[in-house]
Amino acid sequence: MKEKEFLQTIKNTLNSKYIGDDCAYLKDLGVVISQDSLVEDVHFKLSYTTPFQLGYKSVMVNISDICASGAKPAYLTISLSLPKNIDINFVKDFYEGAKMAAQNVEIVGGDITGSEKIYISVSAIGSTKNRRISSRSNAKIGQKIIVSGSHGSSAAGLKLLLDGKKEPQTLVNAHLMPKAQICFSTQIAENAKTNYAMMDTSDGFMDALSQIANASNVVMSVDFDKIPYDQEIKIFDNWQDLIFYGGEDYQLVAAVDENLLKNIHGYTIIGEVLKPKNISGVNINYSDKKEFLTFEQIENKLYNHFKE
Amino acid sequence: MKEKEFLQTIKNTLNSKYIGDDCAYLKDLGVVISQDSLVEDVHFKLSYTTPFQLGYKSVMVNISDICASGAKPAYLTISLSLPKNIDINFVKDFYEGAKMAAQNVEIVGGDITGSEKIYISVSAIGSTKNRRISSRSNAKIGQKIIVSGSHGSSAAGLKLLLDGKKEPQTLVNAHLMPKAQICFSTQIAENAKTNYAMMDTSDGFMDALSQIANASNVVMSVDFDKIPYDQEIKIFDNWQDLIFYGGEDYQLVAAVDENLLKNIHGYTIIGEVLKPKNISGVNINYSDKKEFLTFEQIENKLYNHFKE
Repeated sequence: MKEKEFLQTIKNTLNSKYIGDDCAYLKDLGVVISQDSLVEDVHFKLSYTTPFQLGYKSVMVNISDICASGAKPAYLTISLSLPKNIDINFVKDFYEGAKMAAQNVEIVGGDITGSEKIYISVSAIGSTKNRRISSRSNAKIGQKIIVSGSHGSSAAGLKLLLDGKKEPQTLVNAHLMPKAQICFSTQIAENAKTNYAMMDTSDGFMDALSQIANASNVVMSVDFDKIPYDQEIKIFDNWQDLIFYGGEDYQLVAAVDENLLKNIHGYTIIGEVLKPKNISGVNINYSDKKEFLTFEQIENKLYNHFKE
Repeated sequence: MKEKEFLQTIKNTLNSKYIGDDCAYLKDLGVVISQDSLVEDVHFKLSYTTPFQLGYKSVMVNISDICASGAKPAYLTISLSLPKNIDINFVKDFYEGAKMAAQNVEIVGGDITGSEKIYISVSAIGSTKNRRISSRSNAKIGQKIIVSGSHGSSAAGLKLLLDGKKEPQTLVNAHLMPKAQICFSTQIAENAKTNYAMMDTSDGFMDALSQIANASNVVMSVDFDKIPYDQEIKIFDNWQDLIFYGGEDYQLVAAVDENLLKNIHGYTIIGEVLKPKNISGVNINYSDKKEFLTFEQIENKLYNHFKE
């Protein structure tokens, strides 16, 4: 878990209250800001993704970070580093994809430099005007846990792509062209009268649940049968693991007061925030059994880019 | 000039009024934003820079972008991609350097991922509150051209470092640990009663002059004898080229109304904004001759990371 160790060192060195969240809420400026990178052969391979899809996804993952905060995605900058052999069509297609994903979010700058591998770093800025901003430490006992859509499809799609397959398209598309949950986020942030917790599932559904549980010191209790997923993922033996630990679905998970639910739509209630008995964590209720996992148990299972 | 061609393609694809400037002014949010990247073996080599210096410079070049706009540097995010063999001390030292450069500017987020080479992308956000924001298209005939400090030292320092030398220290330090001109920028932005043009010299002193000349459709006329530089650079035969085309000094060049000058300090007047005869460009007055260069002539001379 080198990445975890590195992050702890960064936190200790900077001694900042912000480091650790994907999005930083800059209250004095009324904005949130996030930055995320995609590195060739770490986060994607050109063997299965087109430049258009790459531009699209690079933008979408950053818009998703803003959505997770509840802010309104407003502007983006893109820093692109490209090997010498890349031609002008790559740049054109990449930005066509970026533009399609950005829609009303304006791409306002960045830079372009040389490199050995393709490296993309996108920053996104969101406006907090007239919105209540989320925090992973806001979950409260009794709140309902809701999600925006299906889990596990992206990781299933990646497995197919790495196997040279292009179908089922639902799964492959979920990985190559995910959609940030702007509508879900906007409804909550504009209508919430009290604080709520929200995260995207970029690093996995269980990661989002356990991060909220840990930061809020609660138990996130979910019913497995209520979690939405595409039936196609059942072609994989480990389809339950894909749902929980797959990541990159860019769905939103939120813990909100039940009162809010009558004012929003397009969500699925999957569980409830409970008081911890001894320790915070995630409780999964299956039809025939229960499973309780602590933050550490979950983090140890999660994919780590620095893993040996 | 592949980078230039790529930028034109990006502009055409996005059809945005923002692309092209280093800093985007987001008027509705009252902020400016910039993003700049440093790539191992393109922008720096570990043979001559320490992790501390690298962290320091990565932050400083982005604060410089904000300074060039006249905004107050407020927050930073850092995206760091590191090869597997990098150890925890690298991360610690890098962030110690970043923190030293940031001073009152808070580092609020970013991410850390794996990669083959070291890749650093920093985003900076500045507040425009109570400040007049610059634009490279704001230069007006009759304005004075002022600079914040010495030109050419950084490029001279790089030449020394690539030769395995560590002295003269003035030059080597100018390259490894440049200083963003926060004070110069603040004075102008807080005191200017009328519009002004300002750029940093990240891509070279002549680049800044020619970009302003081109965007404002004026002639930037400077007296060579008035340009500040460290005498040490004369150890190089091409010291005048280092001054003009070297880059990475992160000084500021501004075209401001003469009235403003009584309210600020720490600047050097090097010339005046003139009306173009036929075409905009940069005029250099030497003691014994004059030289006029168009935007295209200057851009063709400038270093390009994609050059073959």
